Amino acid sequence: MFVSPLSPSPAAHTADLVVFGGTGDLSMRKLLPALYHSDRDGRLSPETRVIALSRGGLTDADFRGKVDAQVRDVVPVDDHAMWQRFLGRLHHLTVDVGGQDRTGWDALRATLAEDRDRVFYLASPPRTFGPFCREVDRAGLVTPRSRVVLEKPLGHDLPSAQRINDEVGAIFDEHQIFRIDHYLGKETVQNLLVLRFANAFLEPIWNSLWIDHVQITAAETVGTPGRRGYYDHAGALRDMVQNHLLQLLTLTAMEPPARNDREAIRDEKVKVLQALRPITGGEVGRFTVRGQYTAADGMAGYLEEPGSTPPTESSERVETFTAIRAEIRNWRWAGVPFYLRTGKRLPNRRSEIVVQFKDVPHSIFPGGSPNRLVLRLQPEEGIELHIMAKEPGAGEVSLKPVPLSLNFGETFPARVPEAYERLLSDVLAGNPTLFMRRDEVEAAWRWIDPILDAWRSSPELPEPYPAGTTGPAGAHELLGRSGRAWHEEEA
Amino acid sequence: MFVSPLSPSPAAHTADLVVFGGTGDLSMRKLLPALYHSDRDGRLSPETRVIALSRGGLTDADFRGKVDAQVRDVVPVDDHAMWQRFLGRLHHLTVDVGGQDRTGWDALRATLAEDRDRVFYLASPPRTFGPFCREVDRAGLVTPRSRVVLEKPLGHDLPSAQRINDEVGAIFDEHQIFRIDHYLGKETVQNLLVLRFANAFLEPIWNSLWIDHVQITAAETVGTPGRRGYYDHAGALRDMVQNHLLQLLTLTAMEPPARNDREAIRDEKVKVLQALRPITGGEVGRFTVRGQYTAADGMAGYLEEPGSTPPTESSERVETFTAIRAEIRNWRWAGVPFYLRTGKRLPNRRSEIVVQFKDVPHSIFPGGSPNRLVLRLQPEEGIELHIMAKEPGAGEVSLKPVPLSLNFGETFPARVPEAYERLLSDVLAGNPTLFMRRDEVEAAWRWIDPILDAWRSSPELPEPYPAGTTGPAGAHELLGRSGRAWHEEEA
Repeated sequence: MFVSPLSPSPAAHTADLVVFGGTGDLSMRKLLPALYHSDRDGRLSPETRVIALSRGGLTDADFRGKVDAQVRDVVPVDDHAMWQRFLGRLHHLTVDVGGQDRTGWDALRATLAEDRDRVFYLASPPRTFGPFCREVDRAGLVTPRSRVVLEKPLGHDLPSAQRINDEVGAIFDEHQIFRIDHYLGKETVQNLLVLRFANAFLEPIWNSLWIDHVQITAAETVGTPGRRGYYDHAGALRDMVQNHLLQLLTLTAMEPPARNDREAIRDEKVKVLQALRPITGGEVGRFTVRGQYTAADGMAGYLEEPGSTPPTESSERVETFTAIRAEIRNWRWAGVPFYLRTGKRLPNRRSEIVVQFKDVPHSIFPGGSPNRLVLRLQPEEGIELHIMAKEPGAGEVSLKPVPLSLNFGETFPARVPEAYERLLSDVLAGNPTLFMRRDEVEAAWRWIDPILDAWRSSPELPEPYPAGTTGPAGAHELLGRSGRAWHEEEA
Repeated sequence: MFVSPLSPSPAAHTADLVVFGGTGDLSMRKLLPALYHSDRDGRLSPETRVIALSRGGLTDADFRGKVDAQVRDVVPVDDHAMWQRFLGRLHHLTVDVGGQDRTGWDALRATLAEDRDRVFYLASPPRTFGPFCREVDRAGLVTPRSRVVLEKPLGHDLPSAQRINDEVGAIFDEHQIFRIDHYLGKETVQNLLVLRFANAFLEPIWNSLWIDHVQITAAETVGTPGRRGYYDHAGALRDMVQNHLLQLLTLTAMEPPARNDREAIRDEKVKVLQALRPITGGEVGRFTVRGQYTAADGMAGYLEEPGSTPPTESSERVETFTAIRAEIRNWRWAGVPFYLRTGKRLPNRRSEIVVQFKDVPHSIFPGGSPNRLVLRLQPEEGIELHIMAKEPGAGEVSLKPVPLSLNFGETFPARVPEAYERLLSDVLAGNPTLFMRRDEVEAAWRWIDPILDAWRSSPELPEPYPAGTTGPAGAHELLGRSGRAWHEEEA
């Protein structure tokens, strides 16, 4: 059956959705609300069921009560009958992974319907991915119509990612494996594909002839209170760059795919990752910046954040901010820096792609500045094309940058679906276009690993930056030394 | 002295502005209000005077009283002292053109100051241009710092335009002659130069590779009540196309000038006019459409409009609407039709340039439509770039055209100066960039004349269209036969 890659088939398959970690935080905050919205919007087939697995020993009724208590406030339940029907889809089974007790697995086998799509959603830590898949296989639950969904992080470096991929790949075929990067479920990110490939006006200027550089920023205002245990072993590079920012980079830089097709689009994305110029050894200090926030303005520094674990040596070395000058070695992009930047405790929550064009080749008016295309993902989704216009007046000609702008919220007042709604719809429809293929994940790690290595062996610590500021001085120097500046600094 | 062509020098020259027809309609409605605004904004030098000439026998006091009565309501006089100071600049002299009485000319010579710029503004019918210039010359009033401003219409065909240019050119050098096309004083028209040449993103797509066609429309809702005497001998082609629409076409199509320079810009404009493919003989019926409005919805038809003169045979043959498919024979534009259209008694008052891009070379999403750039001159000045975006939703991908838009009134809330303010400032500063050079005017007539000839010798009358509709059927067929449509029909 043909499934249009960015379009789940309207008549969704009937599926059993098995959520491992189904009583956990992700499930309650994201998956179940997204499923309820899909249900309400008529995108779940009537027979589709959700079977939560945990070690919790809950009955179906316990689980439904828990969801009723925890999820009902998160989603606007405007239709009581609809909500009850949704709760009726929910089930719970208690399973033991890696142990002797087969009761739960037998019960699961008895519960699952042979004639349905079967989705195993692993909302659990990556160390459980391999063992869980082996249990599912041992219980004889893997059918040709089965799929498995993996949440991030997919490893902490290339070898660990390869190990997970090997373990899961021993049980499931690659076309059955759906690796989630929730950034790909965001409307603006999908709009990036539409903007680039459904509009003719961008393509002629989308190259090194006309583009000076690209900035990709994901700035957060939050810190890491209570999460140091996790974050000490992650850091901004693993947590944000290896997945989200590199995904945005590939979508910005990819060649036009010949088809709107699961493999055609991912083939083009992986080509971009493979064309990234490696940053290794001594270059790491020149092309990357690390920072860690310190106490300021009543906000704690990273090392003083409240939490269960006291700071260790790894706490001192972990980056809460990073900026990288990436380069893509192909005909379209040679010579165009892609600056990536992410951090915690920055002044504004903001995710955006800024495409900075070159200046006019020959200026006949004084005082112009180059054009800029801004794709905003957060806080408000929108597109702005900054152009030069003449300030009205009969006196001296005065140029002024003004935005041609589109605000999605204003233009489309209907509710914009959450990333997880889109992604769950696609999982249920068997459409993997917006999920990361094995070669994509590994190509991203292959580029990230040498940076991690160099940081690890460096005697230097991350540059401190006061909480609430725009990051360490090094981040500004990274652009400043070629006469460029981060977007928000232009004022 | 260097004068930046789109920029009058801030310290305006002290000038004597001599307005022939100074008590007439144009003077009262446009010139004097524009001068008052310039004065209030500090762009008139303190000593600059306005000397109205007419046959009316008014004293300075009479004239000031008349202006006080007629103009005061047109402009917002928020500062009484300023208004009195402005009235103090005004003078009146009675002159006789082509007669024996030299009194007025002697008085004018005695009044004009030797050390000032001297501007003769002919707000009078074109048949007076030659005689007036000869009188000025005979009275010894033409100095090297003199300029003459000619209002439209500059002739009714090429020979009559050449005659006027010869007559005025016998007295004034070409660099002293300022031919007004008030469209060139509009902010959006000047913005077209800025948009094209201060922004890099348009140039790569501004050619036949990426542009399908261009539409230039000047639609009016008004008819011609009381003006049949004039209009019977003008018609839409002379009244709007030969000047305004061809000016918009040249600014849209011109090559980038090497300098923001009076001659560099006009050199490029005239090259476009010279590259227009002539429409002659049998082709006129295929590439042009004529229409005349008929009574509808309580509005009179052209032939029934109230007025002093009864309709004649020329009334039946005059076009109140015309549409033309123009082509430019050069490397940039070969194969790109420029559709021109203007008419009276159309449904909306609207002047705009629509640049319709080609569709994407290869579409991977269903349902897209090509990009379009709209430059609106009237009613509200603005720029819109219509792009395709993804309609938000987790279901089928649905493309939707949305505008990236800029509204000048909202972006620049300060008062936008009237076209005449800009043009008078430029005349006083001696900057002719926004005025038509002799070769421009004549190149335009050279293209227009064969169309007029063919219409004149055709047995057919203009196609009737009911007042308040979008013009005759032929105008829609002109685009329709190549699968195109006028912009407003897309709805």
